[in-house]
Amino acid sequence: MKKFNKIAIVGVGEIGGSIGMDLRKKRLAKKVVGIGRRKSSLLKAKKVGAVDEITLSLEKGVKDAEVIILATPVFKIVELGRKLGKFAKEGAVVTDVGSTKGYIVRNLEKTLPKRVKFVGSHPMAGSEKGGPLSARRDLFKDRICFITPSPRTDIRALASVNRFWKSLGAKLVVISCEKHDRIVADISQMVHVVASSLVLSNKNSLKYSSSGLKDTTRIALSDPKLWKDICLTNEKEIVKSLDRFVETVKSFRSALTRKNTKGIRKMLAEAKSLRQGISQ
Amino acid sequence: MKKFNKIAIVGVGEIGGSIGMDLRKKRLAKKVVGIGRRKSSLLKAKKVGAVDEITLSLEKGVKDAEVIILATPVFKIVELGRKLGKFAKEGAVVTDVGSTKGYIVRNLEKTLPKRVKFVGSHPMAGSEKGGPLSARRDLFKDRICFITPSPRTDIRALASVNRFWKSLGAKLVVISCEKHDRIVADISQMVHVVASSLVLSNKNSLKYSSSGLKDTTRIALSDPKLWKDICLTNEKEIVKSLDRFVETVKSFRSALTRKNTKGIRKMLAEAKSLRQGISQ
Repeated sequence: MKKFNKIAIVGVGEIGGSIGMDLRKKRLAKKVVGIGRRKSSLLKAKKVGAVDEITLSLEKGVKDAEVIILATPVFKIVELGRKLGKFAKEGAVVTDVGSTKGYIVRNLEKTLPKRVKFVGSHPMAGSEKGGPLSARRDLFKDRICFITPSPRTDIRALASVNRFWKSLGAKLVVISCEKHDRIVADISQMVHVVASSLVLSNKNSLKYSSSGLKDTTRIALSDPKLWKDICLTNEKEIVKSLDRFVETVKSFRSALTRKNTKGIRKMLAEAKSLRQGISQ
Repeated sequence: MKKFNKIAIVGVGEIGGSIGMDLRKKRLAKKVVGIGRRKSSLLKAKKVGAVDEITLSLEKGVKDAEVIILATPVFKIVELGRKLGKFAKEGAVVTDVGSTKGYIVRNLEKTLPKRVKFVGSHPMAGSEKGGPLSARRDLFKDRICFITPSPRTDIRALASVNRFWKSLGAKLVVISCEKHDRIVADISQMVHVVASSLVLSNKNSLKYSSSGLKDTTRIALSDPKLWKDICLTNEKEIVKSLDRFVETVKSFRSALTRKNTKGIRKMLAEAKSLRQGISQ
């Protein structure tokens, strides 16, 4: 496969760092440059082998890069994406890893100069821990990566971004931003709200928790700064997902108050069977 | 420590089987007898080393047992508990592992003859898998085991049951049935309802699930027969827990619709900090 030239990663946390590690170990790029705001994070990323070079300067970092990956929280993706328009070379391909796509794609397509080609992406990977020390190899292997082209997307840039994620082993799902934001509200974003709500509504009993509650609320350990951005940029879809979920809880509640044995068993059995349909 | 004489385990699934394994490996009882309805399950329990002897006869199984453990779904615990009153020896200590205590303790205290001493217990352990092949050693080590004496509980029987669970390494929490049923509705039973509801309300997007949703809904894989009984015997407390949870979800929803950055971040941060307070 053709090697990428210089690749710049803006934000060397768990996702950015894991991308860099794979690129380097698989020798997919001639040079991987990590760009960040804090020297301490950049040094950690360098130490774990996620990048070849580090810099605090966006201008220096993205200069001459063939591919630029924005791997920061959502609002920062838009802010830094706008800035790098000035510095990126003619034909540079820019992508991101943000969990909300409509907001990011809309804003960056509006502001990036024509010579820079933006394509949104969202790899479904990463833990609640975050940070460069959580970066690891093969994080994206066999994981879904959504690619969200729009009518304005450059076809060659789309092909590059597809090739990029495929080379990291991801399973590509190419869909519109709108559809992405609906799906991810369902399977990820509203689930975070539910997990956090479970913790908050049970604060007095938490000390008795067993593994069930612990697993169910693990994602409530995620970074509030990161998730606040996600919540605020896809709030309409999250609210729709939550409303559907609350309706389901209410059906359950009603089966409980009516002591409806058949109804309760049916809901539990259907949930079990659907859950068995996805891997562990 | 004084060895128990014959111990009878009624129901040799994951919990009953794990109890038997520990008793045998730690040589805590002279003999462990497994009682069940299906020969196939009993043979599996024997094969994995969970019991010394097996029988399909409740009468034969509990005869001369010093301690009898009811480890079946809730309604069966009450049904079989009632039956064994005729067969158990004078002074036999009976306990159970059911997830709802008020219903079980109330019913068994009413019907068991005086010469049999019942004390309710509930070890917080076990997976969503169930069955004798899921039984394992040290399942109860460092796990909470609730013991729920009532004003009618025999003090010596209570001491025996405490000693029994301590010998398996459990951390005892001795509380009333009422308090137990409130706590466990919060941290376990309503969490099952929430996990199942998450699966049911997202059925169209499930195929895109990542590890977050998978962990959050793992307990939806539990046995519907077992959980139907639990739901039906503690429904009032589960409904109260669900109502409190839905209120919290609604506060979140309202922060989302008002794009209340501070409010969203505060809820996420508080949930994270509370969740950090319990171990992984």
